[in-house]
Amino acid sequence: MSTAELHAACEALAPLLGTWRGPGEGHYPTIPDFGYLEELSFGHVGKPFLAMTQRTRDPQSDAPLHTEVGYLRPQPNRVMEMVLTQPTGVVEIHHGSIEETGGGVVIELRTERVEGTRTAKPISEVRRRIEVAGDALVTEMWMAAMGQPLTHHLRADLIRA
Amino acid sequence: MSTAELHAACEALAPLLGTWRGPGEGHYPTIPDFGYLEELSFGHVGKPFLAMTQRTRDPQSDAPLHTEVGYLRPQPNRVMEMVLTQPTGVVEIHHGSIEETGGGVVIELRTERVEGTRTAKPISEVRRRIEVAGDALVTEMWMAAMGQPLTHHLRADLIRA
Repeated sequence: MSTAELHAACEALAPLLGTWRGPGEGHYPTIPDFGYLEELSFGHVGKPFLAMTQRTRDPQSDAPLHTEVGYLRPQPNRVMEMVLTQPTGVVEIHHGSIEETGGGVVIELRTERVEGTRTAKPISEVRRRIEVAGDALVTEMWMAAMGQPLTHHLRADLIRA
Repeated sequence: MSTAELHAACEALAPLLGTWRGPGEGHYPTIPDFGYLEELSFGHVGKPFLAMTQRTRDPQSDAPLHTEVGYLRPQPNRVMEMVLTQPTGVVEIHHGSIEETGGGVVIELRTERVEGTRTAKPISEVRRRIEVAGDALVTEMWMAAMGQPLTHHLRADLIRA
């Protein structure tokens, strides 16, 4: 994304930088289980945030499934903010934490606000977790929607591309 | 972005597709006037939305200034929904209209919700307008923030790249 030097505020996030690929699994009480292939990228332009782009595809047909884009805004004292939007008409505002693990990082996030357009399916709350350990990245997502409490929805096990 | 066929719901938005570049000007009562160079792209994957990516640079130093990403969700009866997020920690949920003009399109949008992370500067309301006429695209933005009423903030005059 850039040849700029990583902003000092983003140093703990350096293990995220680059592109990650691998399989994922989704489940939710209201729908059948499903599998997907995910590509997840984190880039920077030398400013105090990372840009995130995610795309998933159908493992059989290779058709595009989901996509989302957003920004990670690390703050002092290991606080993390994230904003994210999806073509489903949903925006998420997250607050959470950054934990450096030696060769990796764990990011825990929970929505302070989830909002949608008039035709979007309402979502009450989202929890997200991203863990990097060397060249492996695990991303997980929990969601409260469709009358369900906060429930594990997605997990993908990615490797550095 | 894709070799897929444009979704029927996006037909009126076909004039937007591609990448646009040109100069912009910003002004606001609380800051000095400024100029910028903008690159704006609209893409699709065959689904009923367009993805939008915007980047601006300093005309002198070429340093990155602003960026934002989002999705346009055309609805029946010339209604437009848009979701958008910025690395400033802001998300915007827009509702508005699509007007086909013969060789072009005009999109008028106004925020139903503007939300931010805890450290984001609060914005009360945003109005956006995008007009395509052939190979010219004009984008304008009005903003209510910093105690100011909805005030013209940005205009860029772009041409198809």
